[in-house]
Amino acid sequence: MSQQRPLIISAPHPRDLDLIFTKEARQALSDAYRIVECEPDALDQLDPAVLAQASYVLGQPPISDALLEKLTSLKAVLNVEGNLFDNMPYDTLFARGIHVLTTMAVFAEPVAELGLAMALNLARGIIDADQAFNTGDETWGLEGNQNTRLLSGADVGFVGFGELGKALNKLLSGFQPTITAYDPWLPASVLKQQGVTPASLDTVLKNSDFVFVTASVTSENEGFLGAKEFASMRAGAALILVSRAAVVNFDELIDAVDAGHIVAASDVFPEEPLPQEHRIRKTRNFIRSAHRAGAMDVAFKRMGDMVLDDMALMDRGLPPMRCRRAERETVSMMRSKPVDKS
Amino acid sequence: MSQQRPLIISAPHPRDLDLIFTKEARQALSDAYRIVECEPDALDQLDPAVLAQASYVLGQPPISDALLEKLTSLKAVLNVEGNLFDNMPYDTLFARGIHVLTTMAVFAEPVAELGLAMALNLARGIIDADQAFNTGDETWGLEGNQNTRLLSGADVGFVGFGELGKALNKLLSGFQPTITAYDPWLPASVLKQQGVTPASLDTVLKNSDFVFVTASVTSENEGFLGAKEFASMRAGAALILVSRAAVVNFDELIDAVDAGHIVAASDVFPEEPLPQEHRIRKTRNFIRSAHRAGAMDVAFKRMGDMVLDDMALMDRGLPPMRCRRAERETVSMMRSKPVDKS
Amino acid sequence: MSQQRPLIISAPHPRDLDLIFTKEARQALSDAYRIVECEPDALDQLDPAVLAQASYVLGQPPISDALLEKLTSLKAVLNVEGNLFDNMPYDTLFARGIHVLTTMAVFAEPVAELGLAMALNLARGIIDADQAFNTGDETWGLEGNQNTRLLSGADVGFVGFGELGKALNKLLSGFQPTITAYDPWLPASVLKQQGVTPASLDTVLKNSDFVFVTASVTSENEGFLGAKEFASMRAGAALILVSRAAVVNFDELIDAVDAGHIVAASDVFPEEPLPQEHRIRKTRNFIRSAHRAGAMDVAFKRMGDMVLDDMALMDRGLPPMRCRRAERETVSMMRSKPVDKS
Amino acid sequence: MSQQRPLIISAPHPRDLDLIFTKEARQALSDAYRIVECEPDALDQLDPAVLAQASYVLGQPPISDALLEKLTSLKAVLNVEGNLFDNMPYDTLFARGIHVLTTMAVFAEPVAELGLAMALNLARGIIDADQAFNTGDETWGLEGNQNTRLLSGADVGFVGFGELGKALNKLLSGFQPTITAYDPWLPASVLKQQGVTPASLDTVLKNSDFVFVTASVTSENEGFLGAKEFASMRAGAALILVSRAAVVNFDELIDAVDAGHIVAASDVFPEEPLPQEHRIRKTRNFIRSAHRAGAMDVAFKRMGDMVLDDMALMDRGLPPMRCRRAERETVSMMRSKPVDKS
Repeated sequence: MSQQRPLIISAPHPRDLDLIFTKEARQALSDAYRIVECEPDALDQLDPAVLAQASYVLGQPPISDALLEKLTSLKAVLNVEGNLFDNMPYDTLFARGIHVLTTMAVFAEPVAELGLAMALNLARGIIDADQAFNTGDETWGLEGNQNTRLLSGADVGFVGFGELGKALNKLLSGFQPTITAYDPWLPASVLKQQGVTPASLDTVLKNSDFVFVTASVTSENEGFLGAKEFASMRAGAALILVSRAAVVNFDELIDAVDAGHIVAASDVFPEEPLPQEHRIRKTRNFIRSAHRAGAMDVAFKRMGDMVLDDMALMDRGLPPMRCRRAERETVSMMRSKPVDKS
Repeated sequence: MSQQRPLIISAPHPRDLDLIFTKEARQALSDAYRIVECEPDALDQLDPAVLAQASYVLGQPPISDALLEKLTSLKAVLNVEGNLFDNMPYDTLFARGIHVLTTMAVFAEPVAELGLAMALNLARGIIDADQAFNTGDETWGLEGNQNTRLLSGADVGFVGFGELGKALNKLLSGFQPTITAYDPWLPASVLKQQGVTPASLDTVLKNSDFVFVTASVTSENEGFLGAKEFASMRAGAALILVSRAAVVNFDELIDAVDAGHIVAASDVFPEEPLPQEHRIRKTRNFIRSAHRAGAMDVAFKRMGDMVLDDMALMDRGLPPMRCRRAERETVSMMRSKPVDKS
Repeated sequence: MSQQRPLIISAPHPRDLDLIFTKEARQALSDAYRIVECEPDALDQLDPAVLAQASYVLGQPPISDALLEKLTSLKAVLNVEGNLFDNMPYDTLFARGIHVLTTMAVFAEPVAELGLAMALNLARGIIDADQAFNTGDETWGLEGNQNTRLLSGADVGFVGFGELGKALNKLLSGFQPTITAYDPWLPASVLKQQGVTPASLDTVLKNSDFVFVTASVTSENEGFLGAKEFASMRAGAALILVSRAAVVNFDELIDAVDAGHIVAASDVFPEEPLPQEHRIRKTRNFIRSAHRAGAMDVAFKRMGDMVLDDMALMDRGLPPMRCRRAERETVSMMRSKPVDKS
Repeated sequence: MSQQRPLIISAPHPRDLDLIFTKEARQALSDAYRIVECEPDALDQLDPAVLAQASYVLGQPPISDALLEKLTSLKAVLNVEGNLFDNMPYDTLFARGIHVLTTMAVFAEPVAELGLAMALNLARGIIDADQAFNTGDETWGLEGNQNTRLLSGADVGFVGFGELGKALNKLLSGFQPTITAYDPWLPASVLKQQGVTPASLDTVLKNSDFVFVTASVTSENEGFLGAKEFASMRAGAALILVSRAAVVNFDELIDAVDAGHIVAASDVFPEEPLPQEHRIRKTRNFIRSAHRAGAMDVAFKRMGDMVLDDMALMDRGLPPMRCRRAERETVSMMRSKPVDKS
C-alpha cells in the first residue's frame, strides 16, 4: 500500500493560500500534501482522525492544550503573519519538539529597498524637486542642490541589526559607507562579521549622516528614541524609520524635523490608518509611506516558497532551514509586537 | 638658488577656484604652484615670459596657434567643464604631447545615486504615496502596493556603459540584478569584465524591467531612442534618463508614458530651463529633476583633488592618472556634446 | 545580597581550557563565572548543590538520566569537539529546552584556506616545481607550465555545501568561478542565495575543473565516491578532499590518480596516523596533508570566544547565536561521524 | 570596388602567431586583416606599397626613422612582449599619434594566482608537510601546525601596486585582509579607491604578515630591498617576490630566511636559468618557482584577444581600450626592464 501524503491543516487567516502561493507553488502544495482548510477558530471541531494525522498547521489558529494533545503527529506550526499571538501553549510545543516557524524574513528585502530609497530621497531632495515642476518653481543645477549630500562613503548608523539590518547592509555595499550599529541583542562579533562596527546607541546617533531604525519593538524599548536622542544627532542628518512606530516618540520626532535639526522618513505611524488631521500631513522634510514597505505581493509569494521548502525538509526528517524559528527564550518578546508588518 | 614652483595659468570660467577647491586644497595649490589668474579671453595679453613658463592651463580658454607657440613649457590643459570646446588646436596639442584632461568623472557617482533613487521611486511609487498624505488619500499596506516591484534580482539594462554606467553598476551590486548593456564603443570583453552581458540595443530594451540611459550624445546618436524603441520595452518597465536629453525623442517618450506603456524619470530636458507651459509638468508617472544629478558641491570639490593629484604626477615627469584624457580620435565627438552636465 | 556568578562545570577533555581560551578570554571567563573543573567521568561525584546550580557544562562528559535530573539549572551543553558522542539523553535535553551547542564552525575558515591552497598547487604544479630546484631539474617559463590552468573563471564543483562550503565559496569570490554544488540536505533556494547553482552529484563531477569534497560522512554516504564517480570527472580535473576520508573509496581514488585521469589532494586518510607502507606515500600528483587543515591554534581559541559570547547571551535569557545547535532531527546522524576533525 | 581589409605587418618574434592566437582568433584575424609576415629585421625590405598601407605592426621589430617615414598609415605598434626595446623612435611615434601598445596585463591574473598560492603555502607549511609523507615523517593535527597562520584577516603589504597588485587585491577580497601598499608612482587617492591604505615602504614592511613584492624594476629601484629592509619585517613574516629579481638584494634575502627571521617565495632569480650550485637550492623555508608565474598558454592566448579587440576599435577610428599604452613620459623607464616576464 502506498504511503499517504502528509496532511496540512490550513488556517492562514488573515492571509489566504492564493496570497501566499504562486499558481505553481499552489500546485506543488496540492501534489505533495493533503490539505484540510479550516476556519482558525474551528480546529477543535475537526475529526480527531484528521487531527491525529496532521503534520503541519499553516497559520496560527488558537490551539488549546486539549487540542494540542490530539495533534499527535504535529511537526510544525508555520506562522505566515508578522506576529506571534499568545494563543497556543508554546512551552508544550517546544517540549514536544514541534517547530514554531515564522516567515517574516520575506519582508526584509522589500523594506530595505524602500528604506534605501527614502535615504536617497532625503539626501537629494528628490520629491520636492519633482513636485516643483508642477508649479514651475524648480531650481536648476548647482543652485538646486543646496543641502544635498552623497550616500556613497557616508557615515551610516543602524539602530537594530536583525534580518532587516542585514538586508540593508547588503544593498548599501556598493556605496561603501562606514557603518556603526547598535543592537543590544547581538554579540559584537556577529556585527563585526558583517563588516559593521558595534557601537552604543549614543555613538550611532552622534556619528551618522543617515540613521536607519530597524529595531523591533519589545516590552523594553518602547519609545526609546525621543527628543533627547534626536537632539544628539548631527545637524541635517536623516532618520529613516522602517520597523515599528512604537520605538520612537513620534511627536518628538516631528518636532525635531519641524525645528530643522534633522530630516526624516517613516513607513509606520502611531495610528494606522492615520487620522485626517494628523500634523505629519503638513510636516515638510518628512517622507511618509503608508506601511507599504514590506507588503508586496512578491514578498507574500516568497512565504509560500519558504513554507514548501521547509515542509519538504521536515518530511524527510530534517530540520527546517528557511523559516525563522520562534525560540523558547524570546517567543514572549516576539509576541509583544503590536502591529503586523504587512 | 632654489627651484621655482611650477606656474599655472588659471582660467576656469565658468567655474571659479573656490568652487573647485576646498579650503585645504586651495592652500595646497598655492603652496605648490605659482598661479596667474586670467580672464579666459585674455591669455594672449599675458607677459610672454609668463606664457613661456606656464606648465598648466586650468580651464579651457581659447588658445590660438600663435598663443600655443608661446606656451613652450605647457604640459597639460586641465578642463574643468563637462564639454570640450572647439577653441584650441587639439592636433597640435597632441603632437606636442600636451595632455588635454577632463574632470567629468566626478559626476559619475552623484548621477548614479540619483539614477538609482529614481529607479526605486518608480518601482515603488514613493512620490505619489508620499504626496497622498497631504490630501489624506494614502492607501495602506498591500492595497497601496499595486504595480510595485523589486529592484533586487530584476532585469536591468544599460544604454551606454561609460563612467556613469560603471558607477551605477557598482551601486547596484547589492541588488544582484541581471544586467545587459548596449555600448557600441566598447568591446564585449570590457563589458564582461564588469559582470555585464553585452547585448544589442533591441535586446536591452526588450528584456529589461529598468533601462538606464547613460549614453552621451554624439553626432551619430541624436534622438536614437524614439516611439519605436519605447514600444519595444516591457509593459510597465521604467526608463531612467540621466545623460543627455538629445539622445531621446522627448515628446515620444512622454507619449509612451502618457499611454501607460512605461514609466520614466529624467534629469535632463530638451530646453533648460523648461518653458512654463511644457507638457512634462502635467505628466504622471514621470519623475522630473532639474539637471541636479551631477552638480553637487562635493563633485566640484573632487575636481580640484583630481587636478592636484595629476599635476603632482606631471611635475615629477609621470603621466596623469586621475583625470580622463581627451583622445586624438574622439576629441571631435566629445566636442559635440551640446550641454554641460553641471 | 549580591547575585552569584553563573556556574560552569568544565570537562573539555580531550581539549583543555588553555587550548580553547586566550589569556584574555580565560580571564573574562573567570571574572564572569564560577568554574568547577571535573574529570569527564566524575560528574556524578560532584556535590548535588553544585550540580543543581550549574548553568553550563563545557565539554561532553557522559551524562546519565539520573545525573541530568540533578542538573536542574542547566541551560546548555557546550561541546568543544567536532563530534557528538552517544553519551547523554539528547531527547531529554531537547525536551527540557537545554541547548546542545557545537563549535565546529571554527574549523571552516582554516580548512577552506588549505583547500584553496591545494587547488592552486594542483592547478600549477607548484610543489613539484619547487622540489625540482633541489636536484637542479627545474624547467623554466612556458615550458615548465604544461598542464597548468587558472582557477579564475574555472568551473568549480562542491560535494556538500555546509559551513565549509560557505567558507570556501567566500574565499573563491575574487576568482569569479562558476560554481555548482550538490548537497542533498539543502533546498535549492539556499544554494542559489549563495550564488551557487544546485546540481546533481553527476553534474557536479562531470562539469568541474576543481571538485571540493566538503561533505560530512553520515550513515548514508559512506564511500559514495568511488571508481565510477572518479571516472566521470573531466580528464585532468582536480579533486580536493577536506572533510572525511570515509566519504570516498580511498583506494579507488588513488587508482584514478595513478591512472593519470585526475589529480588529487587530501587532508584526511582512512587510517590516521597512516601506515608507513601505505601506497599514498609513493603516489604522484596527489598532495597529502596530515589532518592539519583545521587544527590550528587560532581556531581553538575562537571556540573559546564563541562559548563566551553564547553564554553571555544565555545569561541574559537570550538564545545562543554563535555556536551551532545540535538538532533533535539530526543529532544521531552527527553522532555517526567517526573521526574528530581536530 | 569593395574596401580592402586593413594590413598588418606581423613580426611577433620571439612569439609566433600560434602562441598568441587561439584557432578561432587566428581565423578572425585572417578574416578581418591582410597579414604580411616578416622577419623582425627585414621590414625595410618590404615593398614600399605594403609599408604605406600597413595599419598595424604586430611585434616590436627595429624601426628606423627612415622606415617609419614609409609607414604612412600606421596606427599602432602592438608589442606582444613584456619589455619595450630601445629600437624605434618613440618620440616620433607619439608625435604622429601612433599608439604603442603593450599586452603585459595578461600576466597579472596568472601571476597573482601563483603569488597567492605561495603565500598560503608559506603560511601553512604545505610543501614540507606533503613531502614528509615520502619519508614517513609527517606530523598529525595540531602538533603538525606549529608556526602556521591564517591569511584571512591578516595584515598584508604590497610593494608596488600596478596591474599585478590590483589582480592580487581582487583575489584576496574573500580573505578580508587589512592591506597597506607602497607605490611611489601612484597618488594616495588611487590606492584608497581600491580599498588599500597608502603607506611608506617602512610601514608596509614593519606592519605586514605577508609582503607581496610586485614592483617593476626601474633605473631607480634596483636592489632597494636588502638586509635592512628584511630585518625591519615582523618575525616570521612572509615575503613573496613575483615581479623582478633585481628589486631585491637576493643574497641578503636568502640570508634573512636562513637566519630564520622571515620565510620567502620567489618566481624570479638573479640568473635564469639558475646555476646548479646556487645556494637557493638548499635553502629551507624558501619556495622556488622557475619563472613560471605568468607564462601560461592561456595568458598568451589572451594577448591575441586583446590585440583583436583593440585593432577593431582603431579600425573604426576609436582609441584602443584593452592594451596598455606606452606613455611618452615613462617609455624610457619601461625600456629599462631587464628581463621579459615570459
